[in-house]
Parts: sequence; structure tokens; C-alpha cells
Amino acid sequence: MKITIIGGGGLVGQKLARALAARGTLRDQTIDSMVLADVVDPAPVEAPFAVTRTRCDIADRASVDALLAGGTDVIYLLAAIVSGQAEEDLDLGMAINMMGVFNVLESARALGTCPVMVFTSSIAVYGGEVPDPITDHSFLNPQTSYGAQKAIGELLVNDYSRRGLVDGRAFRLPTISVRPGKPNRAASSFMSSIIREPLNGQEAICPVGLDFPHYYLSPKRCVENLILGAELDGAAMGQNRAMMMPGRTWTIGQMIEAMTKVAGPEPARLIRFEDQPEIQRIVKGWRFDLRPEKSLKLGLRADDSFEDNVRYYMQDDLPRS
Amino acid sequence: MKITIIGGGGLVGQKLARALAARGTLRDQTIDSMVLADVVDPAPVEAPFAVTRTRCDIADRASVDALLAGGTDVIYLLAAIVSGQAEEDLDLGMAINMMGVFNVLESARALGTCPVMVFTSSIAVYGGEVPDPITDHSFLNPQTSYGAQKAIGELLVNDYSRRGLVDGRAFRLPTISVRPGKPNRAASSFMSSIIREPLNGQEAICPVGLDFPHYYLSPKRCVENLILGAELDGAAMGQNRAMMMPGRTWTIGQMIEAMTKVAGPEPARLIRFEDQPEIQRIVKGWRFDLRPEKSLKLGLRADDSFEDNVRYYMQDDLPRS
Repeated sequence: MKITIIGGGGLVGQKLARALAARGTLRDQTIDSMVLADVVDPAPVEAPFAVTRTRCDIADRASVDALLAGGTDVIYLLAAIVSGQAEEDLDLGMAINMMGVFNVLESARALGTCPVMVFTSSIAVYGGEVPDPITDHSFLNPQTSYGAQKAIGELLVNDYSRRGLVDGRAFRLPTISVRPGKPNRAASSFMSSIIREPLNGQEAICPVGLDFPHYYLSPKRCVENLILGAELDGAAMGQNRAMMMPGRTWTIGQMIEAMTKVAGPEPARLIRFEDQPEIQRIVKGWRFDLRPEKSLKLGLRADDSFEDNVRYYMQDDLPRS
Repeated sequence: MKITIIGGGGLVGQKLARALAARGTLRDQTIDSMVLADVVDPAPVEAPFAVTRTRCDIADRASVDALLAGGTDVIYLLAAIVSGQAEEDLDLGMAINMMGVFNVLESARALGTCPVMVFTSSIAVYGGEVPDPITDHSFLNPQTSYGAQKAIGELLVNDYSRRGLVDGRAFRLPTISVRPGKPNRAASSFMSSIIREPLNGQEAICPVGLDFPHYYLSPKRCVENLILGAELDGAAMGQNRAMMMPGRTWTIGQMIEAMTKVAGPEPARLIRFEDQPEIQRIVKGWRFDLRPEKSLKLGLRADDSFEDNVRYYMQDDLPRS
């Protein structure tokens, strides 16, 4: 069993690689090797099998062909231009989030082995005129270029799967919180910063109000779902390989309360509220009343409480002084 | 007012061009010139304004740039690889139905004038797991590559419109019947042949049974809707520029009955029923319980009866001996 993680240098890619290393198996087979590919060299991951780290630019078909030249059993396609940046730079977003997915599918098709492909879409595909609640059968009416590009990726993964060219599955990730590391250019970046920075003893800015609701999942549970996602039987997914990954809806107020319960009252005092209209314009178009029936039925799981999200961050990711 | 019709050599393109020539205006402006572009030279159309006929391959960005180099106020993008052929040849379908739309949008964006763009999608975007009836808010779960490619085109038109790069609108065409001319490689080709060939005194094969229901629109009404579609105010379409074009559901039996009412009992005797599993596999995945609320509200119209469809064919298209 050979696994290729495209976007293997990112937060989710690294955590996934470590989880697979700890596990040693996927789809009831022993993992023999893993390739971590990204636009910059991915950090090393210790594993009981060979781990190769390499660069790949999915906007370039030849680069993807080179990556997959030796064949692969499972492809995780996690690489993307995040929402804020894709909104600022349409060309870059199209090159990576649309053409990149197309290139990976075409390279995988050329293998002729129908590899499993796990694609991370996003709840940013929802929005616009569609009434709440969002169900498995709701129209995708994204209101960002990132959301549109992710919806296109889903259609491609579905069609290439229907044709038997890949054994694809696409999961619309909730916003991941608490993300470790530094803020990024996603419009959702603050949804981790307001917990992470205070827990690290630093100030954080919250660009929306306490009552802003959103749909979240911890990195830990996301990785568990991505592993289960690769193990699902294609036939069990029916005629639509794209589905929500389960999350839960919390307001900023509830998140801060959970942090206070777990870590005491000090961190919350480091949050400064400062309205940011450009961020608000994007995130207020996102949906939070989501009903992920299909994925729950297939065994994927949300977090039990946001306190868990805080605990996972403190256990797994809090910088040690 | 300059109009560019890409796919201007096709059935709908030619009828649209003639209707615009007869009208002389669009969006309350006098039409000064019209360009008919297609992969082969479009047939001439007489008009009270200049009509240029030219070749254009939308799979080639430079070819589209050359077409739009002089600017344009309205683009009709009707060109496509039809369903049966797109299913046989994935590469060609992707090149025209996905990359072709992307190329036209990028060329239009480069104009910097935000031209109106009318894109013909298809009810083939519907299918799969989505429950009936199909509403304006139903998930697109196409079960053909053609349907997937059209759904991608819609997402692109929507996003480029949201960004103010084009003033787009996309209409999911019902199956057009009665189409004049020869059978084509669309899986739906028989849905015109079984009426057209008998009215022309020729035999026709029907690959499905009398009770097969489908969703239809006459070419005449389709052209009227495409003209109205270009005239709609962008703001009136809200956050989703893609919608169904209204049609009506008829069974093969009802269509033949309508033909008999209009043209007498002779034509129906020329239809031979012969099950064709490959055609059936495609067309039975298509939906026919459609509720085009949004477009009806915006003023688009279906035919009043299939007898009208038969009459339109006999008046406008029946070959004169």
C-alpha cells in the first residue's frame, strides 16, 4: 500500500501523515511507503515505513505526472489556495483549485489503476439563495471563487469516479479549529487565532461579534474522518461521492466559554474585538445550519464539544516553552 | 449593439440569429452588427445589419481572443460537445465543454467591459441521488460527463458574474424538440427524429418505450427565451445566474398522439420501436419532474402543447419538396 499526500506539508497533511504512521495500515493493508508532496519541502514524519518528501506544483501537469510516475494506491489531494487568497487572486485560485484538481485526476487516470482519491472540498461551496438547513441535496451556490473552485473539483471527482478512472471521494470540510501554527490567508483564519493565540499567551483580534455562528471541526477529528474516508467502500457512497464532513455549530461566545472552562479565565482577556468588514463580507456568506446525514450514516464523526477542540490543541499542539 | 454567437452555425444559433435579424434590437438598443462563430463556417443569415461569419475553436484560447478582439456587447455561448459524444470522448468534452467555457470567460474578462454572456447549460446537470421534484435549489448530481461539464460551466459563469467580469446568465435547456435537420450524436437525438423523420415521410427508430417521459421545449420558444434571457436585468437574477429554462413533460405516446392530431395518422406508422440499452442507460438517468419557478417568474415560457411543437416544425422547418 503506497499513499501519496498532495499538500503533505500543510497542517492537515502533516497530522494525517503522522496518524497513518502510527496506524501502519489503511484499507486493511500494511502501508509500505508514503510520499509527502507540497510546493515547499514538507517537514519530515517518522514512520515504520519509507517516507519520501518531494515538491510538486499541481498547476503543472508534468509535475503531477512526475509525482505519480511510480504509481500509487491512495491519493490524498489536500493542496489548495485558501479562500482569502483565491478571492484576491482569481488566476492563482483557478490554476490550483480548478486546474490542479483536473491535472491530478488526469495523471491518476493515466495510471490505469483506478487509485483511491480523497479530495478535501469545503463548506464554502454553500451560500447564496439556497434555503437553510443545508442538506445532502442542497444546491451549491458558492459566493466566493474558492467555493466555486471547490464545487468544480467535486464535479470532476464525481465524474472521474463514475467513469471508473479513480475511486474518488470528496469531503466538504468544516472550518478546522483549533489549527496550530500561524495565521494564514484564509478568511477563516481568526476562527483558530482567537483560541490559539490566547492559549499561547498572545493577543488575538476577533473581526466578528460574539454571536457569530459557524461550523467547526477539530484537526484531530478531521484526520480520523479522512482516514475513514479513504476506507469507505465506493459503492456505499452511491451516485454522489461528494458530501459534508460532519462538524458542529458554535458561536464565538461559546468557543470562548469552552476555552475558559478548560484553561481558566486568563486567555479570554487577550481577545480584542475589532470589526473587519472585508472578512465579515466573506464569512457571513458561509452557512452554519448543516445536516450531514450521509456522512454520519457512513460513520464519519463530529467533535463532542468545543472543549474537546481546546483540549486537543493543548495536548497536541501547544508550543512547549 | 454588437452580438457574438458562438455556436452560430448550429440549429439554435441559426434560429437565434434569424430571430435577432427580424427584431433588429436587443436590450433596447439597435443591433449594429452580429458575428456568427463556429468550428465550421456558419450558414449566412440575412439581416438589416452587418453579419460576419467566422471560425472559432473555443478549446483554443488564442482563437477566442481573436474572435472577441474587436469587443462585443453580448456573447451567446451555445457551442458544445453533445451528450453522447462527450460520454464517448472525455478529452474532447473537457476541452470544449469545460475549458472552452473557461476560455470564453477569460477572453471576455480581458475585454474589461463586462459583456452580457448567455450560456446554454442543460437539464443533464440533474440526476443521481437527488429526490424529485427538481427545484431551483436542488443539488446538481449529473450522471454523464456532459452534465458534469455543463454544471462546471454554470459555476464559472456564476463566479465570473459575481466578480463583475461578465454579466452572465445560464439556462438549463430542456431537450429541444422538434429539431430540424439530421440526427446528431446527442443521446436525445431520437426525441426529435421520431417526429421529424415521419413528418418528412421517412422511417424512424424509437429506442425507448411509449411511456418514456421527458422534458421538452420547441426550438422557437427556446430562441424567444434566449432573447429574453439576454435582456434580463442582472440584479433581478439574485445570487444565482443559473436556472432551468421552462419546458414541459411529455411521454413518447403523448408526442406521437400530438403528431397524429396535427398531421393525421400516416406519420406514426413510420416509427419502429427497438430497445437500445446504451441510449436508455443515459436518458433514463435524466430528470423530467422539473419546477422552473425562478425562470417562470422572470418571464421565460414553455410551450403550450406538444401539438404546437409539431406545428412549429411544419411551419418553419419541414423540407419543401
